[in-house]
Amino acid sequence: MFFPTVSIIGVGLLGGSIALAARQRRVAGRVVGYVRNEQSLARVRECNLLDEVTTDLARAVADADLVIVCTPVDVIVRTVRQAAERARPGTLFTDVGSTKALLARELSVGLANGAAFVGSHPLAGSEKTGPEHARPDLFENALVVVTPVDGVRPTACSHVMEFWHALGASVVPMPAEDHDRALAMTSHLPHLLASTLAATLPDEWRWLTATGFRDTTRVAAGGPEMWKAIFLDNQQPVLEALARFSETLERFRTALINRDEAALLDILQRGKVVRDALTRR
Amino acid sequence: MFFPTVSIIGVGLLGGSIALAARQRRVAGRVVGYVRNEQSLARVRECNLLDEVTTDLARAVADADLVIVCTPVDVIVRTVRQAAERARPGTLFTDVGSTKALLARELSVGLANGAAFVGSHPLAGSEKTGPEHARPDLFENALVVVTPVDGVRPTACSHVMEFWHALGASVVPMPAEDHDRALAMTSHLPHLLASTLAATLPDEWRWLTATGFRDTTRVAAGGPEMWKAIFLDNQQPVLEALARFSETLERFRTALINRDEAALLDILQRGKVVRDALTRR
Repeated sequence: MFFPTVSIIGVGLLGGSIALAARQRRVAGRVVGYVRNEQSLARVRECNLLDEVTTDLARAVADADLVIVCTPVDVIVRTVRQAAERARPGTLFTDVGSTKALLARELSVGLANGAAFVGSHPLAGSEKTGPEHARPDLFENALVVVTPVDGVRPTACSHVMEFWHALGASVVPMPAEDHDRALAMTSHLPHLLASTLAATLPDEWRWLTATGFRDTTRVAAGGPEMWKAIFLDNQQPVLEALARFSETLERFRTALINRDEAALLDILQRGKVVRDALTRR
Repeated sequence: MFFPTVSIIGVGLLGGSIALAARQRRVAGRVVGYVRNEQSLARVRECNLLDEVTTDLARAVADADLVIVCTPVDVIVRTVRQAAERARPGTLFTDVGSTKALLARELSVGLANGAAFVGSHPLAGSEKTGPEHARPDLFENALVVVTPVDGVRPTACSHVMEFWHALGASVVPMPAEDHDRALAMTSHLPHLLASTLAATLPDEWRWLTATGFRDTTRVAAGGPEMWKAIFLDNQQPVLEALARFSETLERFRTALINRDEAALLDILQRGKVVRDALTRR
């Protein structure tokens, strides 16, 4: 798989890492980046990640064979539509957003110039954001979920899957709704709990935290605006995941009130079995 | 501070690390360990952490100047009482348990042979348990809370504090009840949430977890029996910490249902401020 020109819209940790990986692995002949303003332009240029960086969207996508939208989830739809108007006929689009169902609904039809969109979600990243933290190996052995979109041309999905595979990732196709339900539990709920726990800690006990509190709340360091958008986008699945969690939490609370050792052990042992299985992967 | 003979009752990660550190830093002339059975005896001997290991409690404490009880929290009271009966007059006792108020109540008076008990809680450790993971630097820059006990002789507390200080720790005295309330929030609640989250994850979504889920649930790999004992011992403070958390959680849930962006941002931003402050420490 080779794309003569790849365009990255939004050059942060993920966009920057895609650019580095695509150039290093010769998946792209040329990588062009779009950023919103002069400040970002200077910052991205300093990182030396791309062949060209511009604040001109038309110029960024003019020659693109593949456009990868790496903006926050709440502006992906608008960005893809605007970029499609400025791209060559039939240009292929994907993204790196954490939620997929809304995109699949909004971007399945009606894109300008016969553009095709297929959603992607690389399960890679970090609470460290920004192009300064980009690394060419971010996708090696990472999982990328690709969500086919109804009505899109058949080769679009396979080309997007091949692109991620060429960056070193394991690629799995999955319906967008299934993805969003699963990620509500495996990613959005942990973030919700970590932020809530950190927000609950009284200042006067901060010095009495150790590695347990720090690990459990690590993801709470992520960008509040970005995560607000993810929660709102994936509202119903997140509320369902929270309801499932709250059921187990209430079982724990009741067991503790009643000093029910068997019920406490049951949850603690189940948690350990699940956690140990993740470590072994 | 120098203790000619230190006895460690229960040689796991913490007991083993104390032995290594006390020998390396020449805080103890001789370190003797007690383990419950022949199987542990063989395992601990293989790690080469102590000058002597025995399954005979009387022999383990016979010459001790300081006895450190490193058993699970629910057997500390019984263990200190039994060991005091076999120790020399006036022997000093401490422990490494995660909860302190119950010990302070039960061990303040009536110990055999004029033994003195002062509680300790090193905020060090790991989900990796067992003497194989012992390291001499486990307490370097770690925080150790020492909880004075009413009626105990005045030098007991200062000697225990000096012992931990000599192992490289920062040592802070604190009333046992204050310790238990703070740790319910900073350690026991994070564990409760991590275990509950891991226990809630459906098997079919396990492969869709990434670093966020793994970090948030890391402590759930800890020993279920040990943690059950901690939760039961510190029941009321844990229920109070959980109630505070549940209040913030309900604010988050309501904000998400109402798509209240300001309220969501408020919790996410507060969580980030707190988490970022911990990183900087």
